[in-house]
Order: sequence, then C-alpha cells, then structure tokens
Amino acid sequence: MEESKLLYKGKAKKLFKTNDLKTLRVEYLDQATALNGIRKDTVIGKSILNNQITALVFEQLKLKGIHNHFIRLISKHEQLVEEVEIIPLEVVVRNVSAGSFAKRLAIPEGQELEFPILEFYYKDDSLDDPIINGDHIKILKIATEEEMTTIKNEAHKINQLLIELFEKINIRLIDFKIEFGRREDGTILLADEITPDTCRLWDKKTNDHLDKDVYRRNIGDIVPVYQEVLHRLEQTFN
Amino acid sequence: MEESKLLYKGKAKKLFKTNDLKTLRVEYLDQATALNGIRKDTVIGKSILNNQITALVFEQLKLKGIHNHFIRLISKHEQLVEEVEIIPLEVVVRNVSAGSFAKRLAIPEGQELEFPILEFYYKDDSLDDPIINGDHIKILKIATEEEMTTIKNEAHKINQLLIELFEKINIRLIDFKIEFGRREDGTILLADEITPDTCRLWDKKTNDHLDKDVYRRNIGDIVPVYQEVLHRLEQTFN
Ligand SMILES: Nc1ncnc2c1ncn2[C@@H]1O[C@H](COP(=O)(O)OP(=O)(O)O)[C@@H](O)[C@H]1O
Ligand SMILES: Nc1ncnc2c1ncn2[C@@H]1O[C@H](COP(=O)(O)OP(=O)(O)O)[C@@H](O)[C@H]1O
Ligand SMILES: [Mg+2]
Ligand SMILES: [Mg+2]
Repeated sequence: MEESKLLYKGKAKKLFKTNDLKTLRVEYLDQATALNGIRKDTVIGKSILNNQITALVFEQLKLKGIHNHFIRLISKHEQLVEEVEIIPLEVVVRNVSAGSFAKRLAIPEGQELEFPILEFYYKDDSLDDPIINGDHIKILKIATEEEMTTIKNEAHKINQLLIELFEKINIRLIDFKIEFGRREDGTILLADEITPDTCRLWDKKTNDHLDKDVYRRNIGDIVPVYQEVLHRLEQTFN
Repeated sequence: MEESKLLYKGKAKKLFKTNDLKTLRVEYLDQATALNGIRKDTVIGKSILNNQITALVFEQLKLKGIHNHFIRLISKHEQLVEEVEIIPLEVVVRNVSAGSFAKRLAIPEGQELEFPILEFYYKDDSLDDPIINGDHIKILKIATEEEMTTIKNEAHKINQLLIELFEKINIRLIDFKIEFGRREDGTILLADEITPDTCRLWDKKTNDHLDKDVYRRNIGDIVPVYQEVLHRLEQTFN
C-alpha cells in the first residue's frame, strides 16, 4: 500500500484516501471517549477489537442483503471501506429502554419496548448532536424524504438482523447507533461501524454490560469485555 | 355562580369545576414564570390581558372553523371553557427561527423558515418537557396515530389563520405553542391558551418583541407590551 492521505481524524478512527478513488482505509484507534469527546482515554487493544468486530458484523449483514461500506480487513486494526458522503444523522434504534432515553422519558432502564423505536440525532459536535424530528431533517436539508424512507426501512431491517445475530451469542441487543452514506449514484449505504462502542449489549444470562457503558459508567476495563464479544462472534460466525 | 372547586393550579391559570359537568371556569393569574417555573414573578395586570387576548383569538379561530374549548368571558380575568382531557403535548409551530430552536440548530434568530415546522414536547414538568418524536408519542401512548394526524393538520391550519390574524395588526408570528384535548366522544379540540405567553410576536416595523421574551430576556415590563397586543386586536376585531 502506498503512502495515503489523512482525510479525517474522528474520535474512534482515522480515514485515509487510497489510490482507488472510491476506497478509504479506516484505521481504528486505541482511544475511548465519552461525553462527546470531553472525556478521553487511551485504551490499548481497543482498535483491533473494534476493527474485527465491525468487520464481522458488516460481513454478516451483507450476507443477509444489507448493502454496506465494508470491503475487507487489511490488518488487525485497519480495513478498507467504500467511501460515501456521510448523511449527518446518528440513527438510533432502541429495543429496550436504557441510557439517555430511560432518563429523558422516565422509562426504567431494562424495560422492553413494545416495538423498536427510531431516533435521529443531528451529527454535529459543535451542537452536541441534538435530537431532531422529520421537519428538522427537511428544513436542514439533511436528507430527502425518499432517503429518509430508505433509512427508516433499512434501520428496522438491520435491527431485526442484529437482534438475531446477537441472540445466537447469548447477547441481548438493547439499542444501537448507525450511520448511512450516499454513493455518487444516490444509493444509500450503511457505513461507519457497529461495535460495542455503538451498541448496548447485555449478556442474556447475567445482564452484564458488554459495551461502552463499562467505560461510561466506570464499571471496569473494556478490553476484556470487547474481547468477549469478539470471541463469541468468532466462535459462531467464523 | 355558586362556589366552585379548584381542579388544578398551573403556572398561568387556575381551573375550577362548575355546576355544568362539561364546563370549567378558568381564572388567569397575575403571575409570570420562566425556566419551567424556576423563575416566578407577580405581574399585576397580566391576568386580565391574557384572559382577554386568548378569548379574542379563540373566537376568531372559531369563526374560521377551528373547534376549540372557549365558551365565553365571565369577568376581566375569567372565562368559561369546555373541559377536555388534555393530551400531554406541547405542540410548537415555527415560522421563523428563534429561541431554543435557533440555539439547538444554529439557525440565526430571525431567519424565515422555508416552511412551517412542527415540534412536539412531552408535557411533563418533572421531565422538563423533553422534545419527542412520533415513535416516542406512540410508545408512551400519548395519542393515537389518527389523533396525531388530526393534531398536525389542525396545527398547520391554526398557524395559517394566526399568521393572517396577526398580520392584520402589524405583527409577525414567529412561533407559538398550543395544546389539544379530547372530548368524551373522542373528537380533538384546541384548548389551553393563545397569548403573548405562548407565542413569539414581533412588531412588523420595529421587530420589537411583543411577547414573553420581554420577561424571559429582561427587556422590560410586559404589561404595556401585552396591552399593546390587546389594543391592536380590539381595534381590528371588535
Ligand atoms: N464509508 C465512509 N465514508 C466516509 N466517511 C465515513 C465512512 N464511514 C464512516 N465515516 C465517517 O468517519 C468518521 C470517523 O469516525 P469516528 O472516529 O467514529 O468519528 P466521530 O468522532 O465523528 O464519531 C465519522 O465522521 C464517520 O461518519
Ligand atoms: N379546556 C381544558 N380542559 C382541561 N384542562 C385544560 C383546558 N385548557 C387548558 N387546560 C390545562 O389547564 C392547566 C393550567 O394551565 P397553566 O396554568 O397554563 O398550566 P401549566 O403550568 O401546566 O402550563 C394546564 O395543564 C392546561 O393543559
Ligand atoms: Mg463515531
Ligand atoms: Mg401553560
């Protein structure tokens, strides 16, 4: 691989241009953040875990017909993905009440929701990612109504597939955040990552947190926890 | 009128039962609040202004076919209204960026919006009235999908009528908050109040605030400001 140009450095990964115009190299970072980046720690070993977890999950989703950006792993902490124009929305899907949702609406954490619900947050760090509705999305020209219909349908489909996937490794999928992007031809693609950083994953038997809440809530070290998730995934899907 | 039983004391008015099961007496209070009641002041003269302003506005809306709770004024600071089961939603309609909206989305205050937008806040003081979306409304069983369709349509109609009404008195309608209720037969009725406490009203020529922002932002005394609004309304509509 030739020298490549840094395109963007985020809180969890770096994006690099490659020789192929449509392909990016993603380098996962040994870094954990919370409170929109205010809290930040080096966590040795996190990069290789998240890189491999998201690769495996995106591969499984592709097998089930979910178009996504993942191309292939190129090292333990790097992967190639298809470059897209990211739609600045954090699409949150919730199956069980937890976190900010539980607090905002006073629905006890752990309470199963009658149906999966969607939330949209405007991905803008300077605004602290405010929650928005369909009218805001329209007025801010974040996405067209047609794109929003696709995004909602995809989000629900992805949720069903992820519930089944994690069910197989004795994990309850509480909620997760995904991002979508546009190809040049206008098609919508699942992008970014699906990892314990972006999902709430509870052990089926113990209800233990197998996700970033271990870091957010100072429960312990996240490396062994993320390792556990990767091991279970590998045992079942490799 | 016989002795009547206090049903509810809110931040702006008291509700009393009357001899007629379906009728409430609303007593407007000489009180201004901000920050969800944290800031509170006695404002002598406010009650009679808001009582008369909302009466006049609800009458005009009724003439234009908007079903609402208003029956008649019974004193300078009291009116009779039809009792409804309030739907715990603050329905906000915005024509121009202002206030929390301007800050949350970094759209400069005063910027005309391309189309009127709706927002729904869950009316719950203990939760600080969080903004919610359609899925939240469904999961919290705040209103049915059919009711939400009615509420959205009514809100847009009311907005058009209020824009025209205030236009006639040289006032620009920036945004406003309304509440709806259910009759026993299930029909939806505009309820609560429409006053300078619940609208942002800017003078067409000077852009002066003719609303509660004068109190929220410590610009001056609200009584002469609300009086100005009432006088303009009376001159044109009485
Ligand atoms: N396929 C892709 N094409 C272009 N950008 C992407 C793609 N996948 C993810 N991104 C973007 O990469 C950036 C870096 O990721 P991350 O470190 O998680 O950033 P952030 O701090 O914004 O969460 C994010 O802005 C994300 O939207
Ligand atoms: N027609 C009606 N029937 C029953 N309740 C009503 C009606 N109109 C308004 N209300 C309710 O009257 C209460 C008192 O009003 P207000 O003092 O503005 O209360 P708040 O402090 O909740 O804003 C509010 O909860 C409002 O929803
Ligand atoms: Mg990210
Ligand atoms: Mg009120």
